[in-house]
Amino acid sequence: MYTEQVTWLPLIEEINTALDSYLQVKEAEHAQLYEAARYAVLGAGKKIRPLLCLAAAEMLGVPLDQALPPAVALEFVHCYSLIHDDLPAMDNDDYRRGRLTLHRAFPEGLAILTGDYLLTYAFQVIAEASNLDPRTKVRLVQLLAQSAGGEGMVGGQVRDIDVDGHPLVLQQLKEIHARKTGRLFKASILFAAVLKNVDSTVYAELEEIAELIGLAFQVADDILDVTKSEEKHGRSSDMSNQKKTYVTFFGVAGAQNEVHKLLKQIDLRLDALPYSAQLLKEIIHWVIARCF
Amino acid sequence: MYTEQVTWLPLIEEINTALDSYLQVKEAEHAQLYEAARYAVLGAGKKIRPLLCLAAAEMLGVPLDQALPPAVALEFVHCYSLIHDDLPAMDNDDYRRGRLTLHRAFPEGLAILTGDYLLTYAFQVIAEASNLDPRTKVRLVQLLAQSAGGEGMVGGQVRDIDVDGHPLVLQQLKEIHARKTGRLFKASILFAAVLKNVDSTVYAELEEIAELIGLAFQVADDILDVTKSEEKHGRSSDMSNQKKTYVTFFGVAGAQNEVHKLLKQIDLRLDALPYSAQLLKEIIHWVIARCF
Repeated sequence: MYTEQVTWLPLIEEINTALDSYLQVKEAEHAQLYEAARYAVLGAGKKIRPLLCLAAAEMLGVPLDQALPPAVALEFVHCYSLIHDDLPAMDNDDYRRGRLTLHRAFPEGLAILTGDYLLTYAFQVIAEASNLDPRTKVRLVQLLAQSAGGEGMVGGQVRDIDVDGHPLVLQQLKEIHARKTGRLFKASILFAAVLKNVDSTVYAELEEIAELIGLAFQVADDILDVTKSEEKHGRSSDMSNQKKTYVTFFGVAGAQNEVHKLLKQIDLRLDALPYSAQLLKEIIHWVIARCF
Repeated sequence: MYTEQVTWLPLIEEINTALDSYLQVKEAEHAQLYEAARYAVLGAGKKIRPLLCLAAAEMLGVPLDQALPPAVALEFVHCYSLIHDDLPAMDNDDYRRGRLTLHRAFPEGLAILTGDYLLTYAFQVIAEASNLDPRTKVRLVQLLAQSAGGEGMVGGQVRDIDVDGHPLVLQQLKEIHARKTGRLFKASILFAAVLKNVDSTVYAELEEIAELIGLAFQVADDILDVTKSEEKHGRSSDMSNQKKTYVTFFGVAGAQNEVHKLLKQIDLRLDALPYSAQLLKEIIHWVIARCF
């Protein structure tokens, strides 16, 4: 169980330790698969999704050891999506998080397979978690698949590559982001709700709050993409690809204003819950703050 | 429930109907995802894995409606693996089953995403099956992930692209095939064992029989690859890629002899089970027969 002294810094260590232990090299004959997975997962990423999951679990009183495997699964799915999105046939990015993308650091075929491996492994990690009951596991698997699949993340990415270079109205941008990044964000919070087996009213409220968090993060990320140089940020800017972002619609100041409004809404609604959301709020503000 | 009149021909119709109904176009905004998935799944494929699963289920007395969703999941995973294996960064095949491969018929980025979608959807189909208890679903998810993941199919594919163009001994070829195609074959039979919740002795026996079936199919497929022309067979031959196959080790006649020996073993061991394996045996022989 989390103690009152826990802040989010030790949580990142818990996450990194768990990710590392799940990604040990299992078979020497194809060790490069595990090496590539470790390169992709254990890098400089911020581990936002597992952090949100653990913070929401802490808020609801879910033990850390129950929340960790699902949190790991979320990060695996996120990392797989980055690997595949970066491929030459999609965004064709050479750099991510200040390092070569996986298909530049390793053979492209291996990069595709590493993404496949991480996606598959995410479901295995949930199925094999030692201290969750079968009903909870099934709900997590279902939620993860819905969030990552055709009606979620993959569907968003299909729309994203489809609209590349085409004019885009704000509503379309919002819909794409709601799927491409929003659904997995939402799942990060809702995983905790499933683990706690909260009633449908609390679930629905957490779902809406999670949507706001996802949106705030996406707008903040679009700001970061513009205000930080490619060198510092360490990946090719969506701007250089002529992608429409929240900044192209609102400008930097307008987008920042939008994020502030969203943060206020999120704080108010978290405070209205019958739980202490201090840790979750801290993490949300920390994640967003780096964009200003 | 299956009736005694059922042979395997109506089962193929059941499978095709189920696959079709799972792959309805869900959202007009990214309809091309579902169109690509339908192209990849509903083509000329033989649906061997779902057929084996249903035949094994029939043998064990598992109702058809319980076995169909897991059988569909197996086919989705198989099709995803073909889509990704055919990509330029892997086998770079232009044709499969007499038609253009998915990345030749659709944009390559969409093909990658379609594979991701089918893999994710497979787990969702199991999680959402209406008439299976949670414990069974978790065991199916775990078995599918183990069979398809780093220690299974993906691991086999990593070894396969790693050894391309390198000398290969028979033992290595066997190990690669045992993972690349064998594990999902094994899962097809073992899915039925999980659905029936058979005891560990029967499970272990079915596991060994399933390994023999997978091996027989792989050797038969290698024969087919050589004896049928590329035009008739409808995909680039592994021979032309200088891949080592069972035929390069045994010759066509030697490989055919190997298949016959395996079929005899399989029949004997199926006959020794306390079930009627007539349908399963018919299907195995039908699948293999097309290679001669």
